[in-house]
Amino acid sequence: MQVARTVEEFRALRAVLPGPVGLVPTMGALHEGHRSLMRRARRECASLTVSIFVNPTQFAPNEDFTRYPRPEADDLSACEAEGVDLVLMPAVEEVYPNGATTTVSVGPLSRILEGASRPGHFDGVATVVSKLLNIGQPDRAYFGQKDAQQLLVIRRMVRDLLFPVEIVGCPIVRDESGLALSSRNVYLSEEECAQALSLSRGLRRAEAAWLGGMRNAPALRSLVHDDIAAQPLARIDYVSLADMETLGECEGRVTRDALLSLAVRFGTTRLIDNTTLRV
Amino acid sequence: MQVARTVEEFRALRAVLPGPVGLVPTMGALHEGHRSLMRRARRECASLTVSIFVNPTQFAPNEDFTRYPRPEADDLSACEAEGVDLVLMPAVEEVYPNGATTTVSVGPLSRILEGASRPGHFDGVATVVSKLLNIGQPDRAYFGQKDAQQLLVIRRMVRDLLFPVEIVGCPIVRDESGLALSSRNVYLSEEECAQALSLSRGLRRAEAAWLGGMRNAPALRSLVHDDIAAQPLARIDYVSLADMETLGECEGRVTRDALLSLAVRFGTTRLIDNTTLRV
Repeated sequence: MQVARTVEEFRALRAVLPGPVGLVPTMGALHEGHRSLMRRARRECASLTVSIFVNPTQFAPNEDFTRYPRPEADDLSACEAEGVDLVLMPAVEEVYPNGATTTVSVGPLSRILEGASRPGHFDGVATVVSKLLNIGQPDRAYFGQKDAQQLLVIRRMVRDLLFPVEIVGCPIVRDESGLALSSRNVYLSEEECAQALSLSRGLRRAEAAWLGGMRNAPALRSLVHDDIAAQPLARIDYVSLADMETLGECEGRVTRDALLSLAVRFGTTRLIDNTTLRV
Repeated sequence: MQVARTVEEFRALRAVLPGPVGLVPTMGALHEGHRSLMRRARRECASLTVSIFVNPTQFAPNEDFTRYPRPEADDLSACEAEGVDLVLMPAVEEVYPNGATTTVSVGPLSRILEGASRPGHFDGVATVVSKLLNIGQPDRAYFGQKDAQQLLVIRRMVRDLLFPVEIVGCPIVRDESGLALSSRNVYLSEEECAQALSLSRGLRRAEAAWLGGMRNAPALRSLVHDDIAAQPLARIDYVSLADMETLGECEGRVTRDALLSLAVRFGTTRLIDNTTLRV
């Protein structure tokens, strides 16, 4: 495994990798969710590249950019164990060169749900993913369904700007309790962790109701909402049941594939989770 | 010479071209200015590609998108004569697929001078050039210095987003009277054409004064401004003497490379021209 710490170094090493080349863009603090992306990419691509870059522009000033975990040695071990060929760990100054002012924005899809709670977040994501695709030149790039709206935003960007890459979405990975894996779970106290189980529990309950034929949007949202709202440490940002493509909120009877998603704060830790309800 | 009218067709043909590959992005209505870009690219690249696409998003609603000249047969003849290997002539629906909402914006540099006169223009340019680079995958892309601010915007975008392409700027081509070639010159009446000579005349006068040692910014601007202002059919949008990199307006004594640029309307026709004053 080779580790490139500059774009130039990465490009030289990338140029001689056999194709197809897979890229797993990450912010490090790698867990089984990331590793499942690497394994999928490893199976599907002749070469596997991973980027580790904590992107400042997708954090709001009040968010956890500085304290975001950066366990570099563990991350590189994880990459090595998953058979990664080439890791990109660029400096912020190279990804945002002197006075970089260019932004990529996907538009309305960026401004609802996560985008409403985190203004500017998806412009930061779209901008950095553009850069990573331009540096990495992958044939396929792998993203987790855990960040469902991010996946939609990136798919839209790639389609709109005609990037020559296939975006592959991969299932959420959960721990044995049902909690969706996240680099931010380390922030949770034991008590918060216990109450955070209400997120996946609510989603499972709604999935079961959906399979049982429930199609009423407010009722499905309530199944998720009420259990979480009963947790004393939980503050709900949103519980959304929205059209899978446009993310427009569902009203009344649901007749198309829908994304049931939520964001909940425990203290200063913000968790997200979701499931797709298919007609 | 091959002509691809779809992105898919272009990509398949592009994939087998020997590198380095040059791209000359154009809106068609090709004149000697475009042809000089093609000749430069032909000399420097193993393969030469040209795109012909009148980009709707860089025209404001009140501008000349619908009447912009589209002499397709002449354009293809010109490409053929310049030894072009592959032409891309995509449909608007493919470059802006169903509901495309993603935009690329270079920021403050986009909002002054041409950007102030033509709000949204450079976002349209940056967005379409991103798409054309993603489709064309050139090693080098060639742009004319005639659109000096456009060239700066594109260089900034390519640097900021780390596109793997070299941007090559090429000198302005003028007719024997000194008028900078433009696809919009065909709109000019004989009388407007005669008065439009004041543009290049003013720039030449300022160049001569600069070479003679004049460094006072207002005086240099006046040399250009006054001759044009004396033409009864000319309405000046701006005459600017600005820092070559930031396009911040020069005040007092000029101590760094500067761009002397102007935009002037004759009736509904808007002409631009410029020269670089190097210290």
